Amino acid sequence: MSDKTLAELGENESLRLTIAKLINQDKALVGPGDDAAVVLAPDGRYVVTTDTMVEDHDFKLAWSSGFDLGFKAVSTNLSDVAAMGATPTALLIAIALPQTTKISWLEDFAEGINEAIRSLAPDVQVVGGDLASSTKVFISVTAHGDLQGRAPVLRSGARIGDAVAIAGSLGKAAAGLELLSLSNSATKAFDDLVNFQLRPVPPIQAGIEASVAGATSMLDISDGLIKDASRIAKASDVSIKIRAQDLVGFEAILDQVSQRLEKKALDWILYGGEDHALLATFPKDAIIPKSFKVIGAVIARSDESIYLDDQPLISLGWDSIRG
Amino acid sequence: MSDKTLAELGENESLRLTIAKLINQDKALVGPGDDAAVVLAPDGRYVVTTDTMVEDHDFKLAWSSGFDLGFKAVSTNLSDVAAMGATPTALLIAIALPQTTKISWLEDFAEGINEAIRSLAPDVQVVGGDLASSTKVFISVTAHGDLQGRAPVLRSGARIGDAVAIAGSLGKAAAGLELLSLSNSATKAFDDLVNFQLRPVPPIQAGIEASVAGATSMLDISDGLIKDASRIAKASDVSIKIRAQDLVGFEAILDQVSQRLEKKALDWILYGGEDHALLATFPKDAIIPKSFKVIGAVIARSDESIYLDDQPLISLGWDSIRG
Repeated sequence: MSDKTLAELGENESLRLTIAKLINQDKALVGPGDDAAVVLAPDGRYVVTTDTMVEDHDFKLAWSSGFDLGFKAVSTNLSDVAAMGATPTALLIAIALPQTTKISWLEDFAEGINEAIRSLAPDVQVVGGDLASSTKVFISVTAHGDLQGRAPVLRSGARIGDAVAIAGSLGKAAAGLELLSLSNSATKAFDDLVNFQLRPVPPIQAGIEASVAGATSMLDISDGLIKDASRIAKASDVSIKIRAQDLVGFEAILDQVSQRLEKKALDWILYGGEDHALLATFPKDAIIPKSFKVIGAVIARSDESIYLDDQPLISLGWDSIRG
Repeated sequence: MSDKTLAELGENESLRLTIAKLINQDKALVGPGDDAAVVLAPDGRYVVTTDTMVEDHDFKLAWSSGFDLGFKAVSTNLSDVAAMGATPTALLIAIALPQTTKISWLEDFAEGINEAIRSLAPDVQVVGGDLASSTKVFISVTAHGDLQGRAPVLRSGARIGDAVAIAGSLGKAAAGLELLSLSNSATKAFDDLVNFQLRPVPPIQAGIEASVAGATSMLDISDGLIKDASRIAKASDVSIKIRAQDLVGFEAILDQVSQRLEKKALDWILYGGEDHALLATFPKDAIIPKSFKVIGAVIARSDESIYLDDQPLISLGWDSIRG
């Protein structure tokens, strides 16, 4: 059965064999299968975000399995929910696939979705989806969260004197991408970094902890530390000073691979995207959660948005249109 | 400026020039621009659905303008919300476009979104979106609704003896599709039908009226009357008898075009998709809203799901994978 293609099985049977395997089907008030789902919003508000992944622009099928893509599509969207300080609750997953895709690929995709939910946010429900036909693989996920009575943590709340802190990894996804593009013995030697690029593991719980601890601003680092930090700086009308010595721990993790590839780990850390770490600012008197590491401070708005010690840094990073 | 391409302007500037033009930006608690939006859920629950449109599978750029696609992507998703008996509240719109797309096309797409909102559900907010790069155009919309304290109207609630009724058109979108594929003088002569295929106008308010009137089941007809009616029949464990004489009014509207194209109007009415009419069932004693026309009755489950008078009908309709 799993050797059959989507075209041979048709939409209904393909969905039945795959979407039916997604976990937590019974948790929504109305789950998939009707015109729309019905989801509880205990807070009286809900957080919602959408993100899209396109074959050959955001991923290559030669590098990513169906499992990898299911996992990554879920984890990156949960990260955006966590970056608001919300608890992830419900997902909708739209995917377009070539008619020649084997049903086993779609089953693998569903397993990746399940594994991301199990490992990152086990109460999340998949409440809807759509399966369409296309020449290239296209994945679009919408994720919802509940604020549990707290105010959302925006990008615009950073204040002068706040501590700037990171939960999660920096530079691992960029190193993994470089290893994938080399496809040599180093790729195998550093498979933990390759796997982090293929299946990023954002610190979902840390987002809620930051909100509870009174974080004044937060976002998830998808386009690189400097580019995303400058988004907080601009939205909050401040500048941010990062202390180079506080990045040493992140560099140490990448020490071996940077020597092997003869690249600077600091470039991956400052400009590499797709780590989905959380960058947050906390008031001076806040008790910063242990999941966060302080890397700098919010300073008065200056000529440049971001400084590494006293050196201004240009905001480079990923542009989803131009690459 | 509008002659420039997405690649020339980049993601941020392209978004600024287009998404910034969407209406109702200020209505959400937190609108687009942060990691996620925050939307009110006054009912304590929300309705949510997603639908995808892929170039060359669901539309052709030679037939549909950016305006048409923006309008249709919104109207078809609002229809799914209305089919639950909910009031549409918030949309997220993800689109992937070739880098060579002119910014004027994206501006036109945004105008189509605005026009659909204005004409169908003027309080709806666009709270998020995503702009990605791809070789083909891919549009994925997620729509939300509020139930205003009412129970959602599912597909599974039809009971023996209920009246079966339609709000909206039947067969117009299918006739329009046939006219588009001919692309001759008839296409121009019946431009109202062509326009209905390109920019369907679902009866959004009728969905809420049906819910208030006590509809026992409802869905939006996207894959054809017979196929969608059989979904209600199967989910409710009943059969449905449609009276041919009650379809005469729908046939009359298509009389001229069916003669011109030498096609049977009844085939478009029974098997044509994409009209996004609402099909609902009402208890015998319900006061059926004027927006609905009764076309049959729910009968005890029989060998076939759907009968036209006493003739069993096979469930043919659109399969989004196989076409």
